[in-house]
Amino acid sequence: MTRTVGYLGPQGTYCEEAVLHIYSKTDVCLQPFTGIDDAIRAVGSGTVDESIVPVENSLEGSVNITLDTMAHDVNLYITKEIVLPVRHNLLMKKGSEEIAVIVSHPQALAQCRKTLGKLYPKAKLKPVESTAAAARIVATCDGLCAAVGSLRAGEFNGLTVAASNIQDIASNSTRFIGLQRQPIVCEPGNCKTTLVCQINGEQPGSLYNLLGEFAQRQVNLMRIESRPARTGLGMYIFFFDIEGSIAESNIAAAISAIEKKCLWYKNLGSYPVYHVEK
Amino acid sequence: MTRTVGYLGPQGTYCEEAVLHIYSKTDVCLQPFTGIDDAIRAVGSGTVDESIVPVENSLEGSVNITLDTMAHDVNLYITKEIVLPVRHNLLMKKGSEEIAVIVSHPQALAQCRKTLGKLYPKAKLKPVESTAAAARIVATCDGLCAAVGSLRAGEFNGLTVAASNIQDIASNSTRFIGLQRQPIVCEPGNCKTTLVCQINGEQPGSLYNLLGEFAQRQVNLMRIESRPARTGLGMYIFFFDIEGSIAESNIAAAISAIEKKCLWYKNLGSYPVYHVEK
Repeated sequence: MTRTVGYLGPQGTYCEEAVLHIYSKTDVCLQPFTGIDDAIRAVGSGTVDESIVPVENSLEGSVNITLDTMAHDVNLYITKEIVLPVRHNLLMKKGSEEIAVIVSHPQALAQCRKTLGKLYPKAKLKPVESTAAAARIVATCDGLCAAVGSLRAGEFNGLTVAASNIQDIASNSTRFIGLQRQPIVCEPGNCKTTLVCQINGEQPGSLYNLLGEFAQRQVNLMRIESRPARTGLGMYIFFFDIEGSIAESNIAAAISAIEKKCLWYKNLGSYPVYHVEK
Repeated sequence: MTRTVGYLGPQGTYCEEAVLHIYSKTDVCLQPFTGIDDAIRAVGSGTVDESIVPVENSLEGSVNITLDTMAHDVNLYITKEIVLPVRHNLLMKKGSEEIAVIVSHPQALAQCRKTLGKLYPKAKLKPVESTAAAARIVATCDGLCAAVGSLRAGEFNGLTVAASNIQDIASNSTRFIGLQRQPIVCEPGNCKTTLVCQINGEQPGSLYNLLGEFAQRQVNLMRIESRPARTGLGMYIFFFDIEGSIAESNIAAAISAIEKKCLWYKNLGSYPVYHVEK
């Protein structure tokens, strides 16, 4: 049976670009979702075999809905990470000259704010649900609007590229993760492991003691992200990205020690990282 | 001269509610801003004496634009914190029956999603820029729409309350901070101190070593939040909220030790915390 892979659609999103770096359209059945949480829940319910969703951007930070859905609403595992360099383009209808409104996903607008302010100081920035939806809106507008989005989104909607690489900071990239119902076995080498847990924040030094379990075993903590535990202000859960696989003994030992110290804990899996070339 | 206080407007926002807990309209000149970053930058440029903006919600987490603007774009100090319990209401025009669209700020919609799904399973949720703007939109709509917002926003726009306390989790509250150009002196007792810094993340254990400066001096870390350093994926700055004032010797010593270990560092000040009664 053909494998079904969900992603944050519609067609032409950066998320689709990440999916197509891993899968060919002829090998899998791609299913776009309008919301990140819908794409994730579809894996949990068995509607799709895997979903690929954004989890972090180098300028805008974590995609909270991805972290919160993984922590609170489903029991899935991360099976791959794809790092995609983000190059935004200003897309408009052929023959457009004046631009009164620029539409895009709020994060894309934020990532280009300085450049857009220089190019079109009078244009109003208007957030819409995705960069791909923005391109679709421009294709049907009166010619006074433009979209920030990918080259694919522009081609897909018959738009021209008025300016390319308009992101304010060149080193802009987004991390996407693939989620499945079962964990994979990730052999050591180019592997990451993600945990999420809640500690007793009322004990001073509890986070310090937890990080000590990594430090004393030379486990490299690549990222720590706190999110509300949703049990009240001042109570948090923590996501830890660590370098390496649970197949390595020092990492397995650190994780086992951390599990004992937490009020609540989930191992989200060990997985390989793919970098899309610039 | 009358003191001018900026806040995230328009009139009727929860932010205005927080401001009015501290200031009376007869004593200060209140100035609403449409964007959080505009409100913060207005303090830096001297347009207002102080701005009060949201920084964290107990369900949705940090308000990233507040943290990023404070870290990267201005040099201001936190001079107060106001914790406001959030009670969302469903507001509609008098005589409305069918509801096809529910508008509000994306965070407010997220905080009521389950309740709204039960009350109006077919209604479409549409994000707009603020809860107050949502109420204004409903006041001028065709009667098929409703807004999620505060009682003040409802009164202000002549709407009726179709359902009150519709947030999914009762313990929902938002932290607001006041920002000024000069730090205040906060005497020990009911005080918090906030730092932001960048550490050398390539050295394993660097965050652990930093937290050790707090732990060995019995300084209680209340919150840690990472945000992108904006210099590339995997590089972060950290916000630390600690219990107490820099006027306390152990806290002053910890901060001084941390300053020496960081690549970059800002002390955002010690400040009192005000809780609005439920």
